[in-house]
Amino acid sequence: MAAIKLHGNSHSTAVRRVLACLYEKELEFEFVFVDRNIGQHKKEPYLSLQPFGQVPALEDGDLKIFESRAITNYIAKEYGDKGTQLIYTSGTQMAEMLVWMEVEAHQFNPAFSNLKLLVQASRRGSPMSTAVVEECEAKFSKVLDVYEARLGQSEYLAGDGFTLADLHHLPTISYLMATEYKKLFDSLPHVSAWVANITARPAWVKALATKDQQ
Amino acid sequence: MAAIKLHGNSHSTAVRRVLACLYEKELEFEFVFVDRNIGQHKKEPYLSLQPFGQVPALEDGDLKIFESRAITNYIAKEYGDKGTQLIYTSGTQMAEMLVWMEVEAHQFNPAFSNLKLLVQASRRGSPMSTAVVEECEAKFSKVLDVYEARLGQSEYLAGDGFTLADLHHLPTISYLMATEYKKLFDSLPHVSAWVANITARPAWVKALATKDQQ
Repeated sequence: MAAIKLHGNSHSTAVRRVLACLYEKELEFEFVFVDRNIGQHKKEPYLSLQPFGQVPALEDGDLKIFESRAITNYIAKEYGDKGTQLIYTSGTQMAEMLVWMEVEAHQFNPAFSNLKLLVQASRRGSPMSTAVVEECEAKFSKVLDVYEARLGQSEYLAGDGFTLADLHHLPTISYLMATEYKKLFDSLPHVSAWVANITARPAWVKALATKDQQ
Repeated sequence: MAAIKLHGNSHSTAVRRVLACLYEKELEFEFVFVDRNIGQHKKEPYLSLQPFGQVPALEDGDLKIFESRAITNYIAKEYGDKGTQLIYTSGTQMAEMLVWMEVEAHQFNPAFSNLKLLVQASRRGSPMSTAVVEECEAKFSKVLDVYEARLGQSEYLAGDGFTLADLHHLPTISYLMATEYKKLFDSLPHVSAWVANITARPAWVKALATKDQQ
């Protein structure tokens, strides 16, 4: 039995964030399916792992943690000597990594969530009004413009190396790339090169190919 | 001239988060006023410090960083030997700290933002409907219930010591304590004791008393 157990569903962007990290670190783990269709995530024993009733949750021996970005940070620090180095621990690159991790959480992700709502509404057959769509697109593009400027200065968000600051974007970017909102990336050469680069990483390809063990 | 310059306004919750951290670490700094009333935050030279046009931004010598939680993390790591120890660097306490920092960012803060919108609407004389108010209150209370359970197990969110996981809540909690939504905390003894404890910290009292240098 693996010491690390990841609880969740392969289609969750938050779960995929953790899968990408586990594969980058080349760690063995057990992927425990949480059946959200029958509300398993809102009942015990799962609520003892994740009190907000969301996926993912992770067990590492006796340790139980949740929140996808907390899990990736924990793994990157605790298993610093395994697989890809995903964090800088000092100096300017550490500072840049911290900034861009927060930009992902507080700028990129909220703007992404708006676009995801548009996609879901459209798929349900009740698309939002043109005004709402244009507002969400404009908001997301404004965020991407800042990324374009940043990625014109360095290959990755925190400098020369791939870090959690980049990794945290993978599931949400991949989601958008399969929708009409791919167009918002196309006119931005540095962002597009970064997206092509990070989504081609073997660990991410493996995360996308991971299936639920039902 | 101080090596550290904090750019922002004393009334911003995000700026106060950084002020609390700087005072906990007993660091000298210059507080540079950004006049949002004349849109200084949306123009150069400020946009070179903070490309999203928000406060705060921080300079430490040649380093320029932004996003309040990135700044506090940077300060806590870079000035580890000064003032209060605000981070755990290994083991279960590090993991718990990471979890509760993410809970603040992705559970507490969004639920807080909803209540802040209610307060602002009410102060403008156009209060939201009872249904919306009740929904926002219920959402926030659900988050606080998880905190109550956690704080029944340890004095602080990450264990026995005050960390950034606690500090990050100070400005938003203090904001709510001055509104009718204080009532949502009153029935929760562990949360109330924690709030009384962390808001009484000298560094936080100093942060609240800090005025803009106009």
